[in-house]
Amino acid sequence: MSRTLSVDLNSDMGEGFGTWKKGDDAAILKIVSSANVACGLHAGDPEIMVETFRMAKENGVAIGAHPGFPDLWGFGRRPMPYTPGEIERLVAYQIGAAQALASYAGHEITYVKPHGALGNMAGADRKIGDAVTRAILGVDRSLVSLSIAMGAQDVSAREAGLTVASEIFADRAYTEEGLLVSRSEPGAVIHDAEAAAARAVRMVRNGAIETVSGQRLETPIDSICVHSDTPTAVAIAAGVREGLEAAGIAVKSFIEGARA
Amino acid sequence: MSRTLSVDLNSDMGEGFGTWKKGDDAAILKIVSSANVACGLHAGDPEIMVETFRMAKENGVAIGAHPGFPDLWGFGRRPMPYTPGEIERLVAYQIGAAQALASYAGHEITYVKPHGALGNMAGADRKIGDAVTRAILGVDRSLVSLSIAMGAQDVSAREAGLTVASEIFADRAYTEEGLLVSRSEPGAVIHDAEAAAARAVRMVRNGAIETVSGQRLETPIDSICVHSDTPTAVAIAAGVREGLEAAGIAVKSFIEGARA
Amino acid sequence: MSRTLSVDLNSDMGEGFGTWKKGDDAAILKIVSSANVACGLHAGDPEIMVETFRMAKENGVAIGAHPGFPDLWGFGRRPMPYTPGEIERLVAYQIGAAQALASYAGHEITYVKPHGALGNMAGADRKIGDAVTRAILGVDRSLVSLSIAMGAQDVSAREAGLTVASEIFADRAYTEEGLLVSRSEPGAVIHDAEAAAARAVRMVRNGAIETVSGQRLETPIDSICVHSDTPTAVAIAAGVREGLEAAGIAVKSFIEGARA
Amino acid sequence: MSRTLSVDLNSDMGEGFGTWKKGDDAAILKIVSSANVACGLHAGDPEIMVETFRMAKENGVAIGAHPGFPDLWGFGRRPMPYTPGEIERLVAYQIGAAQALASYAGHEITYVKPHGALGNMAGADRKIGDAVTRAILGVDRSLVSLSIAMGAQDVSAREAGLTVASEIFADRAYTEEGLLVSRSEPGAVIHDAEAAAARAVRMVRNGAIETVSGQRLETPIDSICVHSDTPTAVAIAAGVREGLEAAGIAVKSFIEGARA
Repeated sequence: MSRTLSVDLNSDMGEGFGTWKKGDDAAILKIVSSANVACGLHAGDPEIMVETFRMAKENGVAIGAHPGFPDLWGFGRRPMPYTPGEIERLVAYQIGAAQALASYAGHEITYVKPHGALGNMAGADRKIGDAVTRAILGVDRSLVSLSIAMGAQDVSAREAGLTVASEIFADRAYTEEGLLVSRSEPGAVIHDAEAAAARAVRMVRNGAIETVSGQRLETPIDSICVHSDTPTAVAIAAGVREGLEAAGIAVKSFIEGARA
Repeated sequence: MSRTLSVDLNSDMGEGFGTWKKGDDAAILKIVSSANVACGLHAGDPEIMVETFRMAKENGVAIGAHPGFPDLWGFGRRPMPYTPGEIERLVAYQIGAAQALASYAGHEITYVKPHGALGNMAGADRKIGDAVTRAILGVDRSLVSLSIAMGAQDVSAREAGLTVASEIFADRAYTEEGLLVSRSEPGAVIHDAEAAAARAVRMVRNGAIETVSGQRLETPIDSICVHSDTPTAVAIAAGVREGLEAAGIAVKSFIEGARA
Repeated sequence: MSRTLSVDLNSDMGEGFGTWKKGDDAAILKIVSSANVACGLHAGDPEIMVETFRMAKENGVAIGAHPGFPDLWGFGRRPMPYTPGEIERLVAYQIGAAQALASYAGHEITYVKPHGALGNMAGADRKIGDAVTRAILGVDRSLVSLSIAMGAQDVSAREAGLTVASEIFADRAYTEEGLLVSRSEPGAVIHDAEAAAARAVRMVRNGAIETVSGQRLETPIDSICVHSDTPTAVAIAAGVREGLEAAGIAVKSFIEGARA
Repeated sequence: MSRTLSVDLNSDMGEGFGTWKKGDDAAILKIVSSANVACGLHAGDPEIMVETFRMAKENGVAIGAHPGFPDLWGFGRRPMPYTPGEIERLVAYQIGAAQALASYAGHEITYVKPHGALGNMAGADRKIGDAVTRAILGVDRSLVSLSIAMGAQDVSAREAGLTVASEIFADRAYTEEGLLVSRSEPGAVIHDAEAAAARAVRMVRNGAIETVSGQRLETPIDSICVHSDTPTAVAIAAGVREGLEAAGIAVKSFIEGARA
């Protein structure tokens, strides 16, 4: 008996600060199924967090805590020299703040995805992946760990018994090792919405990342990350969603029935 | 059948930031029954919060979230011009951050007491008292509201159906209206540990605040606030505890059997 | 022998922070003659400051330090409860930071104009006006004080012997006392570029503010403030400049030949 | 004709923040000849800066800008991943802020010494040393560069034509390469005031750093750095000063007659 194939679409949200804005959250929230919401240390503030949680709820979009380094100036994109222990507690702090404001806003945090440099480090360095895992374990082990497919945090969270959701990027090329090709290399970023969509469909259907050479790296794929803050963000997100649906792949949160 | 009279002793804790220290928390934690822990916006950071929660647990001391204005420079003592709505969400944010790190540290936040200028405003201005109340309601209505006896937050929280604990100051004089005499007035602060202790015993026994003129203002008294960051803090806190115990009044958290 | 009538056009610039942007500085810098550059406490950072100073220099635009309250979250628009003494030192700090980075960028700070809530307070409250004046006196008395025509800082700076430049708003209605009509009142803001321009021309020619009732309040007018961060900012700024020039009024910095 | 041998004693000052204190500045200012004053980004605030400048002036102590990474939480001790260009502008910003507040306080900044991790990086990495040098050149080339003897910033500043002052540590062991022995190694820190003083005298007399093996590395020595924030700071600083003076070496600022 066949079940309908589905995949989650996630995007970063609530990335303004005070009077500064970033991205068209209202438009993106009509497309994605999961919103990674900044927790106030690299972006976001309590006002924006609550507003984003409310908009997500109105749009039936799941919300995740999106903790980052305490670096408003660098938007969480600098690899800060915090120890794994400090990172653990920084992540726990942000998860709790997000949970409380989500509850206040009538919604619920169901997953955790680290932001920017922290996300990259958690995917590449097992010690940092473990730090994020321990933060989730310490705060609320019912929270799903959302991170880069085949990355260190995915492995760490799975070993720790957390529910894991693995994400791929529709618009980024992958090396033979399953890492993102550096943005400085030609072809690293796919700018065409249609090409990105077709690629996403193939990877979800195949249950495998597609590398530059065309090799397939098998991996669970629970979510596709689309950007929210580039000029073409809305168009690409919409294109990927249309492509998936046209191929019979439903876009829905990984929360119900998330893999253990 | 008589029950042993008891009262809580609470003190602000975890008020350092990074490498900066404030107060002798280790000594105070051996005296008080409740620790109000700064949540990172006016003082405290994730490292200090976790360390304070752990020390409190080791000493059998209850912990409360101690939210303040986002004002490290002013240590939360400036009356910041935030709207009630902004305060509501600032308080909710901090409660959640504290709950998460308490859970991570193996302890549990059981009450909320606003800090400094925010505490004063919540006690004096019903709109701010309501903002704190709504933050607690929105995040976790099982949390006890700890605030100034006869103050606006006490009234607000009680009307909203929260469990309320009311505090007095052993070392501060009270006006006929039950307000603290301004520190600029003579006699506003009682510097003698013995006098403060005797006064605390009388107020707890009488169930009433003692005003400058000697009048008694009846009020529930669940907790006595002692300072942690003055040169004589430890001596006064110890003196008050000894005085209470010598008078047959047990020092224990208001959490078990808190008034509804 | 007649001299050509001229007036300065000033606008707030460099009001982003890190990756967050605000306003189209490149476009505004082609229109105005003076750029009020945020100094890092309410907006701006060293990268943005230097970039703005360089762009101003390329466009032949004078630069001023634009100090504000240390309130990134509120963009300096909240009336913060700092004492006059604290404000004095906050302003001095920011003037110095701006001077150093201007020198580094090959340009020079020639005036000081306080931002947002600080600017309003300096215009309305003599104690705050004096604080800004004392900051300028303490750091560099060759700096021009730019502030609201007929405001408290104007008076304070003039009495202290500083060079003073007085500004009006082309797009705001004035009360009979020369204060800005509150934005909440109908007609407070003039949204039509042509009307704003015509109004600016009249006020500069008459050497007088035009009140709601049509009364003229005589005052030196050295500069016209145009906004940079509204959707119509560039259009209104350009319109005002065109209107002035069509009326034979040159747009140029008040720095050369500023009134004593 | 012989001239009296002299050396400068420098120490970090003004390292509190708001209500948090660090070190006994009043006591240290009676011992040293130069105060490195934190500029608000890793420690210090405008109130503390002005107070420190005034106390330094009263004690006849020279003042230097002591810029650090924007990291209050880490007290500027974390090696932050800023680019050399960003560091350049961060340093320039802080120099200017310090100059302005020094002028306001009636004193004058005469040198620049980078703090903590920034100081270490400037001493070890030529690119960072050059960044500090360029900041000084861009803001005010009359400022003296004070940095670690034989370090990268010393070399960089000298090549750029700045006036250079080179410092040693009386209480730290040196490797054969002239680097500080890591604090984790035995014997890295000399805790005995008398031993530190004797060592300082030898190094100043010999014009050479003394390595662990007893080798002498010839270098200009213009200043000796003593700590201000350790429990024994005052005792060691006083001991070093007494030792120098007993040996006929005057303690005085390097500012008059600083080497080019």
